[in-house]
Amino acid sequence: MKTIKIGIVGYGNIGRGVEKAVAAAGDMALAAVFTRRDPATVTLADSSIPVYGINAAEGLASQIDVLILCGGSAKDIPEQGPRFAKSFNIVDCYDTHAKIPEYLAAVDAAANRTAAIISTGWDPGLFSMMRLINETVLPDGKCYTFWGRGLSQGHSDALRMVEGVSNAVQYTIPIDSALESVRRGELPQLTPRQKHLRECYVALKPGADKAEVERQIKTMPDYFADYDTTVIFVDDDEILRNHKEMPHGGVVLHSGATGVNRHIMEFKLTLDSNPEFTGSVMTAYARAAYRMASEGQYGAKTVFDTPLVYLSAKDRNTLIREML
Amino acid sequence: MKTIKIGIVGYGNIGRGVEKAVAAAGDMALAAVFTRRDPATVTLADSSIPVYGINAAEGLASQIDVLILCGGSAKDIPEQGPRFAKSFNIVDCYDTHAKIPEYLAAVDAAANRTAAIISTGWDPGLFSMMRLINETVLPDGKCYTFWGRGLSQGHSDALRMVEGVSNAVQYTIPIDSALESVRRGELPQLTPRQKHLRECYVALKPGADKAEVERQIKTMPDYFADYDTTVIFVDDDEILRNHKEMPHGGVVLHSGATGVNRHIMEFKLTLDSNPEFTGSVMTAYARAAYRMASEGQYGAKTVFDTPLVYLSAKDRNTLIREML
Repeated sequence: MKTIKIGIVGYGNIGRGVEKAVAAAGDMALAAVFTRRDPATVTLADSSIPVYGINAAEGLASQIDVLILCGGSAKDIPEQGPRFAKSFNIVDCYDTHAKIPEYLAAVDAAANRTAAIISTGWDPGLFSMMRLINETVLPDGKCYTFWGRGLSQGHSDALRMVEGVSNAVQYTIPIDSALESVRRGELPQLTPRQKHLRECYVALKPGADKAEVERQIKTMPDYFADYDTTVIFVDDDEILRNHKEMPHGGVVLHSGATGVNRHIMEFKLTLDSNPEFTGSVMTAYARAAYRMASEGQYGAKTVFDTPLVYLSAKDRNTLIREML
Repeated sequence: MKTIKIGIVGYGNIGRGVEKAVAAAGDMALAAVFTRRDPATVTLADSSIPVYGINAAEGLASQIDVLILCGGSAKDIPEQGPRFAKSFNIVDCYDTHAKIPEYLAAVDAAANRTAAIISTGWDPGLFSMMRLINETVLPDGKCYTFWGRGLSQGHSDALRMVEGVSNAVQYTIPIDSALESVRRGELPQLTPRQKHLRECYVALKPGADKAEVERQIKTMPDYFADYDTTVIFVDDDEILRNHKEMPHGGVVLHSGATGVNRHIMEFKLTLDSNPEFTGSVMTAYARAAYRMASEGQYGAKTVFDTPLVYLSAKDRNTLIREML
């Protein structure tokens, strides 16, 4: 079997997660990392892998089978996806749900001779697949997605924007009583406040007004105002010491019926490391992108379009024998 | 959108489940039911649907888009799959795991101008998909399948074979402490006895030897000897009254690692009616078979080969917008 040569664009937490997953895959090898930083400042887990500036990528296209885009969804991916899909098979974890159709179209227009699987990871990604399966199997039903307990990068960033805050992290916590109500088949109508709690660990700059910081956080629209939000003041050291891990997870819960009979479908993830798990999912989809491109299945794809058989290093007959 | 015309072969519990699911699907209509019994003795929920003897099927092929095979895996499906795949797109829930490769090959040889999706349902089916996803995303891990609490048809049949038994049902019960150990990431090695309990409700014929029946059950190889088995004697009335429902379910639990970080992936089904849920899954795959055939994707397929987008009555753009 040919080894699939992987390139990583963006060497942050997810990039390191992909590096680990590729190293663990028997059928893949990491060929290069591309960064917007000075390559000399980037140290990989395996120092034999070359690091290049991002603009060197196209010149090395012949040495790479799939490029995995590990940058942010706000600015990096919307520009990098259409750019790199012209010359590479790509995989990303673009997660701005509202803009996915527009992003998909831009990537599809570029991917004339490549396969590009967008918005992989776990949400979007595995959770999206579960939502689709749930609704098609039990259309008379209601599907709920809960997130956490986990560190939300977006909400942590929002805390850090508040004047007087020096550092902060935010945990999203699903409310057990809401989960249990869904599991009992009660089909509750749940407001944001009834689904999740928000727990904030906040370190202040010298001289900051604690009460005012707390007020600003709790009244921040979209992020915190619609939730029961707890603010716990700690010092910078404690944030660095006790909140550097990135656990996450969540549940897709579907409560459906066939006439009088009720059924509950539940998919739950409990993750020690959000970026490492996300990187693992992306790496499996990189294998799929490589194979779809090998068969001439070009264009932008999603997890909905990708047969599961392409995800595995094992051949179809082995999968059928061992897992079906 | 064209209405997909469905035919059902075999009108038992699963056939009735499919009938219900097709009636609930806006894009499908039930065209006919085929039975090995005298058609005059079969009464459908909707009496306007025609019932035919099974040998009338081929003559009506032009009126049916997908034939859903709802017979048993022991004798019906191995013969019907290859037979009907010659003239129909088919879906089945063939569940003799060890013989799936052989059955797949036989159906594939027949499905030259049709699409045949075999072994759908929830196990094989949705559980198989989860096993594949789990192993490909977290290859450094261990995947466990637990079944129940649920009524096992095979084990109930085995009880009814014991001399002196007039009627019986068997519930398979997963052992909570084993589930919890897996959820804690302990990667236990579990024997059959450590994973499941077997609970038997048994009604005796007049004059039967209670102690001898219990001994025969508890020492029956494969079915009961390797498990902690409880035998509860009841009368025939109680079995008919309290054990006519067919609840089932189970859990696919994967405990995996990325280096030092551990992750748990869990997919759990809690089903009031095993045959109705199975019929609902088969009906979604009938839609997929119809679409794959419309695109010339002929041959025998499994849930591993079928992109999820084909399962839904909604178009791809809507799915991407609403669920990704």
